[in-house]
Amino acid sequence: MIRNPGVLSEKLGLSFNDPELFKIALTHRSAGVNNNERLEFLGDSILGYVIAQQLYGRFPAASEGSLSRLRASLVNETSLAGLARKHKLGDYLLLGQGEMKSGGYDRDSILSDALEAIMGAIFKDQGIAACQHWIEWLFEDKLHDLPLDSDGQKDPKTRLQELMQAKRLDLPEYILLSMGGSAHEQTFTVQCAVQLIADTTTGVGISRKKAEQQAAEQMLELLAQAA
Amino acid sequence: MIRNPGVLSEKLGLSFNDPELFKIALTHRSAGVNNNERLEFLGDSILGYVIAQQLYGRFPAASEGSLSRLRASLVNETSLAGLARKHKLGDYLLLGQGEMKSGGYDRDSILSDALEAIMGAIFKDQGIAACQHWIEWLFEDKLHDLPLDSDGQKDPKTRLQELMQAKRLDLPEYILLSMGGSAHEQTFTVQCAVQLIADTTTGVGISRKKAEQQAAEQMLELLAQAA
Repeated sequence: MIRNPGVLSEKLGLSFNDPELFKIALTHRSAGVNNNERLEFLGDSILGYVIAQQLYGRFPAASEGSLSRLRASLVNETSLAGLARKHKLGDYLLLGQGEMKSGGYDRDSILSDALEAIMGAIFKDQGIAACQHWIEWLFEDKLHDLPLDSDGQKDPKTRLQELMQAKRLDLPEYILLSMGGSAHEQTFTVQCAVQLIADTTTGVGISRKKAEQQAAEQMLELLAQAA
Repeated sequence: MIRNPGVLSEKLGLSFNDPELFKIALTHRSAGVNNNERLEFLGDSILGYVIAQQLYGRFPAASEGSLSRLRASLVNETSLAGLARKHKLGDYLLLGQGEMKSGGYDRDSILSDALEAIMGAIFKDQGIAACQHWIEWLFEDKLHDLPLDSDGQKDPKTRLQELMQAKRLDLPEYILLSMGGSAHEQTFTVQCAVQLIADTTTGVGISRKKAEQQAAEQMLELLAQAA
């Protein structure tokens, strides 16, 4: 059963002046001539531009090589298919009989293309600013979790681990001290300990990972002061 | 001798709020740490987006494959280096001693990267609309002269000619009615006549070719109305 595209667009925070564009974005070439291939071409280029701009701004000290690697880690078929699955795009795809039977609604390439086609549809319907805004919303977590900090350095956990490995010491230990808040606003508190010094550091964040990064960062600062 | 970047930016119709950005765009990595690599990363992505958008709009019937091929024919190192040479970018590049001696100012990769870096600099200095406008100016002739594609919409002159051939009539006639304006802002007016109807159409453009295309387009519309 094909679900109503209007439900999906609402879930995605989208409101189309021309809902037909959104429907085309969800139409795989197996379902007809008026499919999402052209919109995908357009969306793919916009996505490349928006992510490049975001990375350029977020990592002012990163080299061109780092920026390219970061973009490749964000914009690839697997990553896009993951985002599409998160928003259950597969339930709303229009596929031909053959693709439907062979599980096309869960194929990485089809999901990824449809997601890019949605970007093209937003651009056609509402222009570049709206499209950029939506892409930034879609990639918010991924952009936030990138393994580099604002100086173009590796993230604190990685740097702390490498520091310990270089000194042939045990790897840092992270202990979850507490978890609180409501389901949508959880707070994690994590303690970091290393073999090098007795002091520990504490990090707080909206995810365990973020709390660990903060604890690692503070440990790096502590070690820098102690050195 | 390195020439004043201000002269080049003026020739390119550019006026930077921050002229330093333009200088960085012309600085190859061999000349120092503060070079054009990051701006090139940014410019490359904007160029891809702007050209994709142009092709999408200009070829409403072209398949995704055709659009991709057309873009690849416009955006590649050789094509960009050609545009850079046309505007004598090489004379203004900042290169290290080694690159200077080995002719880096005329190397395709260096010219192409610098051109993309200029796009990145315009974007940083003036935003996406100004950058898009400049890219469209830079690529105007190339976009206009695009090789015809079997899936894409052919240009009006070709379509009109094919229409006449299909009807076994004489080929359309184009007559230059007038030419005016100063050397840099010439205007051509061309009349188009076909054997099929007595009415003629008139096109105006900044080149004879463009005026002919416009006249052909209007003739096609006239014929469609008459049909």
